[in-house]
Amino acid sequence: MATIRDISKYSGISIATISRVLNAKGNVSEETRKKVLKAIKDLGYTRTDMIKKTAKKVIGIIAPGVGIHYSLIIEGIEEELKNTDYQMFIATTDQAIKKEQAIIDEFMTRKIDGFIICTSKKDDEYIEKLIQSAIPVVVVDRQESEINTDSVSIDNYTAGQKAVEYLYEKGHRKILFIDGYIYSHQPRKKAFIDFAKKKKDITLYIEQGGVTPKEGYKATKNFMKQKKDITAIFYVNDWQAMGGIKALTEEKINIPEDISVMGFDNDNYGNYLNPSLTTIHQPRKEIGMNAANLLIERIEHTCKSKVKRKILLPTKIIERESVKDISEGKIC
Amino acid sequence: MATIRDISKYSGISIATISRVLNAKGNVSEETRKKVLKAIKDLGYTRTDMIKKTAKKVIGIIAPGVGIHYSLIIEGIEEELKNTDYQMFIATTDQAIKKEQAIIDEFMTRKIDGFIICTSKKDDEYIEKLIQSAIPVVVVDRQESEINTDSVSIDNYTAGQKAVEYLYEKGHRKILFIDGYIYSHQPRKKAFIDFAKKKKDITLYIEQGGVTPKEGYKATKNFMKQKKDITAIFYVNDWQAMGGIKALTEEKINIPEDISVMGFDNDNYGNYLNPSLTTIHQPRKEIGMNAANLLIERIEHTCKSKVKRKILLPTKIIERESVKDISEGKIC
Repeated sequence: MATIRDISKYSGISIATISRVLNAKGNVSEETRKKVLKAIKDLGYTRTDMIKKTAKKVIGIIAPGVGIHYSLIIEGIEEELKNTDYQMFIATTDQAIKKEQAIIDEFMTRKIDGFIICTSKKDDEYIEKLIQSAIPVVVVDRQESEINTDSVSIDNYTAGQKAVEYLYEKGHRKILFIDGYIYSHQPRKKAFIDFAKKKKDITLYIEQGGVTPKEGYKATKNFMKQKKDITAIFYVNDWQAMGGIKALTEEKINIPEDISVMGFDNDNYGNYLNPSLTTIHQPRKEIGMNAANLLIERIEHTCKSKVKRKILLPTKIIERESVKDISEGKIC
Repeated sequence: MATIRDISKYSGISIATISRVLNAKGNVSEETRKKVLKAIKDLGYTRTDMIKKTAKKVIGIIAPGVGIHYSLIIEGIEEELKNTDYQMFIATTDQAIKKEQAIIDEFMTRKIDGFIICTSKKDDEYIEKLIQSAIPVVVVDRQESEINTDSVSIDNYTAGQKAVEYLYEKGHRKILFIDGYIYSHQPRKKAFIDFAKKKKDITLYIEQGGVTPKEGYKATKNFMKQKKDITAIFYVNDWQAMGGIKALTEEKINIPEDISVMGFDNDNYGNYLNPSLTTIHQPRKEIGMNAANLLIERIEHTCKSKVKRKILLPTKIIERESVKDISEGKIC
């Protein structure tokens, strides 16, 4: 087990300076910083080595909450750690950037070995600080960020495109998009808008929803009041679609005979809704597994890649009963 | 901020011995242990004080997973911590006792200030060790344990009783109980069995389910194959009931006209099922809030109660559309 003293001897840099790098305190020249990082790597030093008599390493997971989306990502991370000596600590930000920073500070103080950060891109600057230090970071669900670190996500734009193309192929031309407020929802919406612009025969309505069944229910009820003619509704997640199905059923609208319904995520209850929900599967468990794997490689210095890796995982359409093919006899 | 040295001076006990108490290493006489705990309390020492230059305190939450049940408890804890200087780290055990012990060790190493433990009662011995040290522990969902520490839960037996009495009052005499495998499910089942024994006119069937919609669906399908005559099904949680509703709908059984369905938990989607689900509400957010509150009082030595406190929170029936009153004209 290497100590800070060993790193100091090896690199000829003072312990105080090494400590500044390890704790992301800044005020260290780029050249010195690189020397420290090299010594850390050469000696196989990890942050847990700062604490005496401890056997296990710990990775810190930062997420907005532990709802259905993040709980599956976390399950994937847990799965990947199962046969290792690693533990994981999870902390939730409640989507507050200030809280996220406080958590990062506290993880640093407690000598956590590496971070998996699943949050919005507003925190780029703060994460940049971590990356400048010796702390390995993997970001999740952050497709559009320019941040220079390993990342795992799905391509939300392409997934949205897949959904709207599917509905189009099934003959749907008057489509309602129920929006959410998570950043990953925005590329999905953009894909619908772009596709509608390209194909002149689509009428696209957008209604603000949210993330819960209650919000999906409300958004659907609101839109239905306008008595507009639609043949399909896309919900930005399955959780909302559940509420939407309830709203449509109450309005005596048959799914999919009168209106088709499509969700996103492939949550584990989708098969148990009535009708069962056609949706886009995103491999959340695999997102977690890949993130854990990338992070451990960085912590253990076993990763040979000097450049940062961006892993995009595939999505796929899960066809069930809630979308009707109305294209028959129609000239596309 | 007190140091271990201060505690040593104040109590006349060696630093090594104090450290043994603080880190739950055992091998300390009862008299000495009590002296150390008194000195810690008198000087307002916290575990975070072992780490230099840190401002925030951290509580560690240990849970089997971060599914819907624990995520709501965690939300309650988060709510309670909002206006404090506390952070929380969550770690999951995947129901493995060995993993739980490893997490506790790691939380100790990282100087976590106190623990909220939501797990099975198999870990009594290990938690007892913590309680013997200076580390405050609050246990959640552990009604039957004899463990000597603050606890928060609902009374699962009484809640089960409430459910079966409700079905009985509505005229149901042939009832199917779909079981789960979480320890809190067992007192619910016992309440059904005891009630059926007391009231001679109840026929109670028990079918093994699980916790997911898939398991609820399967258990319902399995039972239906036997063509037994029932008028109501109680699912040990809402999540299973969702799958059950799907299974019954597939079998062309009308809910509640042919068979009534009742759940447990009052999950946030219950209102959006078809029909909306009658269930028992358990105040999970409040369980979390109360647990956090008890723990902070112990960490900050502001709790005047010398004896351990057991908080039992109330449950209540949420009446929706899935249970039919068939008692009319019936002589009870």
